[in-house]
Amino acid sequence: MCRWAAYIGDPIYLEDIVTAPGQSLISQSLRATESKTETNGDGFGLAWYGEREEPGCYHDVLPAWADGNLRSLAHQVRSKLFLAHVRAATGTSTSRTNCHPFSAGKWSFMHNGQAGGYAQFRRRVDMSINERCYAHRNGTTDSEAIFLMALGAGLEEDPKGALERATGLMEAMSRDTGVTPHMRMTVAMSDGARLFCARYASDEFAPTLYHRRMESGRVVVSEPLDRALSDWVAIPPGSFATITEGEVKLEEFRPAA
Amino acid sequence: MCRWAAYIGDPIYLEDIVTAPGQSLISQSLRATESKTETNGDGFGLAWYGEREEPGCYHDVLPAWADGNLRSLAHQVRSKLFLAHVRAATGTSTSRTNCHPFSAGKWSFMHNGQAGGYAQFRRRVDMSINERCYAHRNGTTDSEAIFLMALGAGLEEDPKGALERATGLMEAMSRDTGVTPHMRMTVAMSDGARLFCARYASDEFAPTLYHRRMESGRVVVSEPLDRALSDWVAIPPGSFATITEGEVKLEEFRPAA
Amino acid sequence: MCRWAAYIGDPIYLEDIVTAPGQSLISQSLRATESKTETNGDGFGLAWYGEREEPGCYHDVLPAWADGNLRSLAHQVRSKLFLAHVRAATGTSTSRTNCHPFSAGKWSFMHNGQAGGYAQFRRRVDMSINERCYAHRNGTTDSEAIFLMALGAGLEEDPKGALERATGLMEAMSRDTGVTPHMRMTVAMSDGARLFCARYASDEFAPTLYHRRMESGRVVVSEPLDRALSDWVAIPPGSFATITEGEVKLEEFRPAA
Amino acid sequence: MCRWAAYIGDPIYLEDIVTAPGQSLISQSLRATESKTETNGDGFGLAWYGEREEPGCYHDVLPAWADGNLRSLAHQVRSKLFLAHVRAATGTSTSRTNCHPFSAGKWSFMHNGQAGGYAQFRRRVDMSINERCYAHRNGTTDSEAIFLMALGAGLEEDPKGALERATGLMEAMSRDTGVTPHMRMTVAMSDGARLFCARYASDEFAPTLYHRRMESGRVVVSEPLDRALSDWVAIPPGSFATITEGEVKLEEFRPAA
Repeated sequence: MCRWAAYIGDPIYLEDIVTAPGQSLISQSLRATESKTETNGDGFGLAWYGEREEPGCYHDVLPAWADGNLRSLAHQVRSKLFLAHVRAATGTSTSRTNCHPFSAGKWSFMHNGQAGGYAQFRRRVDMSINERCYAHRNGTTDSEAIFLMALGAGLEEDPKGALERATGLMEAMSRDTGVTPHMRMTVAMSDGARLFCARYASDEFAPTLYHRRMESGRVVVSEPLDRALSDWVAIPPGSFATITEGEVKLEEFRPAA
Repeated sequence: MCRWAAYIGDPIYLEDIVTAPGQSLISQSLRATESKTETNGDGFGLAWYGEREEPGCYHDVLPAWADGNLRSLAHQVRSKLFLAHVRAATGTSTSRTNCHPFSAGKWSFMHNGQAGGYAQFRRRVDMSINERCYAHRNGTTDSEAIFLMALGAGLEEDPKGALERATGLMEAMSRDTGVTPHMRMTVAMSDGARLFCARYASDEFAPTLYHRRMESGRVVVSEPLDRALSDWVAIPPGSFATITEGEVKLEEFRPAA
Repeated sequence: MCRWAAYIGDPIYLEDIVTAPGQSLISQSLRATESKTETNGDGFGLAWYGEREEPGCYHDVLPAWADGNLRSLAHQVRSKLFLAHVRAATGTSTSRTNCHPFSAGKWSFMHNGQAGGYAQFRRRVDMSINERCYAHRNGTTDSEAIFLMALGAGLEEDPKGALERATGLMEAMSRDTGVTPHMRMTVAMSDGARLFCARYASDEFAPTLYHRRMESGRVVVSEPLDRALSDWVAIPPGSFATITEGEVKLEEFRPAA
Repeated sequence: MCRWAAYIGDPIYLEDIVTAPGQSLISQSLRATESKTETNGDGFGLAWYGEREEPGCYHDVLPAWADGNLRSLAHQVRSKLFLAHVRAATGTSTSRTNCHPFSAGKWSFMHNGQAGGYAQFRRRVDMSINERCYAHRNGTTDSEAIFLMALGAGLEEDPKGALERATGLMEAMSRDTGVTPHMRMTVAMSDGARLFCARYASDEFAPTLYHRRMESGRVVVSEPLDRALSDWVAIPPGSFATITEGEVKLEEFRPAA
């Protein structure tokens, strides 16, 4: 499992989410409280939207708590929409290419969760990424694969539908192996204008996902950044959220291959 | 392009090849003389055989000239058969998973060269690695792919034939893209008992390859480790060498898909 | 705080201590049980004695649990005397130069503990390392400093006395700042022939230290590698142990500046 | 030797200097033309001023040509004043703490050059950094030391005088060892409002230094970023330049201990 946080709203410093809060993402890299894995020290990453269409990206394999570059960057860079992630590897190697968020063109994507038996069907997964999207296949994670499968399944036109198709396909391959749990996930992704989040599991243990309205915008998190605040709202399992500056639209999320 | 060196014979310290000679592999990482790429600073690696069936492996993304671990390891470890490589990336990322030598079970493999247009047909390449061998596909290089394609094409029973099949298939895919040169390679690989080397190109510019008899054994190199010595013997293009402690057997190398 | 393990005896694979046991050093890098810091993911290191006078050294900033090089090395290398360490940084940066064990000539040294207020008197500490030893001052830790202070205080002739002098001086400087605890430490060091360990604190909370007789030799650890075994013997606080192949000699350890 | 580039003027993307030009700083990391060292692959760094008083900093030990983070950052971040550096190590280790630019509070500093015999008098150098500035001494380079010596010698009030004092002291220590050349340097430093540069040598071989007026501001470089442009102006040896948005003020630079 991993931990992540995403923000959309008025431009704020990345550090307001990544390093500053009492239980910030950096704190969660050392000791998370609602995660299967307490320590998420297998790399980290940022994707932030500024003046360019494509996001800026920074990844490294060091534990987030140890990285001076991350602190400096978060202290300097403002953004109206950004994704941040700390990784706990589930079987694949620690390398920059396996750090989230992943990106392709204007899209960015991060994931917490896993597909049961993935190591057994990784080749099938890679084969289900189409020719055009394969150029972005740089690592070996199921996470990057779900992103690229969705990218090739109409992410641009229908984000929810594309992610449902990708998730459904991954889950079907897991069912073929018989290894449970087949699919547990939270996802955040963006095209630079909207923030999309999903929470889903094939069983009753969907990883946690919350959102909260801040003065400047909205933040979505794996677990609360500050437990002193009481207005974290859980996103129900089986949900897909489309978040723009003013609004959160919740729909049912139904993966189908 | 990259530079490499391999040794088979009585156990010697790795440093006798990797760091000590006048134009050692570490020197070649900074400034090689017979290479398309002068600087080979995109990572390095060692695979050495000791008491175990599988080789010990050490890789890092730092330039070889900068790595204290490499110097210390080479100074301490003796081996009767080892492969050492310094990398110049040709399009794929710098990561430990893209460093040579690659290994699977008792086999180790390293490569200098490239397949024209590889980035365009990488997905085809990955698809030609069979299910069993795909578990070893950790990076994105054409080098690792050739190894795994050969592994799945009978490397155990017929090393030369398997490598011919893998090379031929890679070259055929390159011809389909029309990007030249289609195939240029030198390869060294081992099962821990024998050292196999190949030199081949689809045109007349096969990367250089030499061997030399030392007092303790035989060394095979991309370029001479010490130009003061005059008895470096070039391995002809289109050759496959099987080297054991006493003998070098040369055969024609004819890739065919 | 950190965790460490040292071995002296018949040559064994490093992995018998570093990776194989139920609560191996690699396990302790993720989750230690008797440590102030549960996670020790700020780098790791090995120093092992083979045929050379000086030890082989391998360090990296990655968490030990994530490093493939470490596993491979530990699986291949045998040694009659070695030190292994996983680091939890206490204020100084994560870099290879701040990883233990440190080495100078034939000596290697590792440490778990801290000197209260060290950041305030680091310059004083550096000034107390003599000219000859300063060439080995590559990092900024109090640990490396204690080693070099001891090296310059007669480590070669009188290991216990030299370490007492270095520890006493460091403790005195801490007392000058008024920051408690002034000194808590366990140390392991070696000249390649003997293994020396110390356990000491200026208060009543000396970090834990145990040893155990294995069939092949003796292992000294911060915390047991395997709790199923009941014959771990605690080394009392305020002790200095000199361990050779057959014998453990315990003396009082009394730091004095 | 190393290569660097600095800019002051209207905010521009860092990439306009770091990655985009024909002979950009990244190109110079692989193959510089006017440098003692052709390859400058021992790490790199950026310091850029934005909304904060202190600069943002990014450093890594990878060769600049290999780092995806650097390209992304340079593509996204705009700044009105920034320093960028690619390193060729001259005896001290490759680590993030030895990468330039160095920073303390609002000040940033980078250097190309060396002090003859530095390894012999490094302890004397460290001792000449005062108590307050020593907290910033994280590495082992002469470069970082010159910065901290200047910081403690009145950098805030008199940048030129402080740098003259620091350089003079370093040069005097070099003369004591008898190792030539005693001092060769180019330096760029900033307080976030002004850019200061210096070019000096104790002999007649001061490293090269040029500046050029761009449409948006002024750039100062070790060697031209684009040789097609003919209006690069050499800064004479023994000069200290104070550069603000509109003006370049040149004064004599006379180091004295």
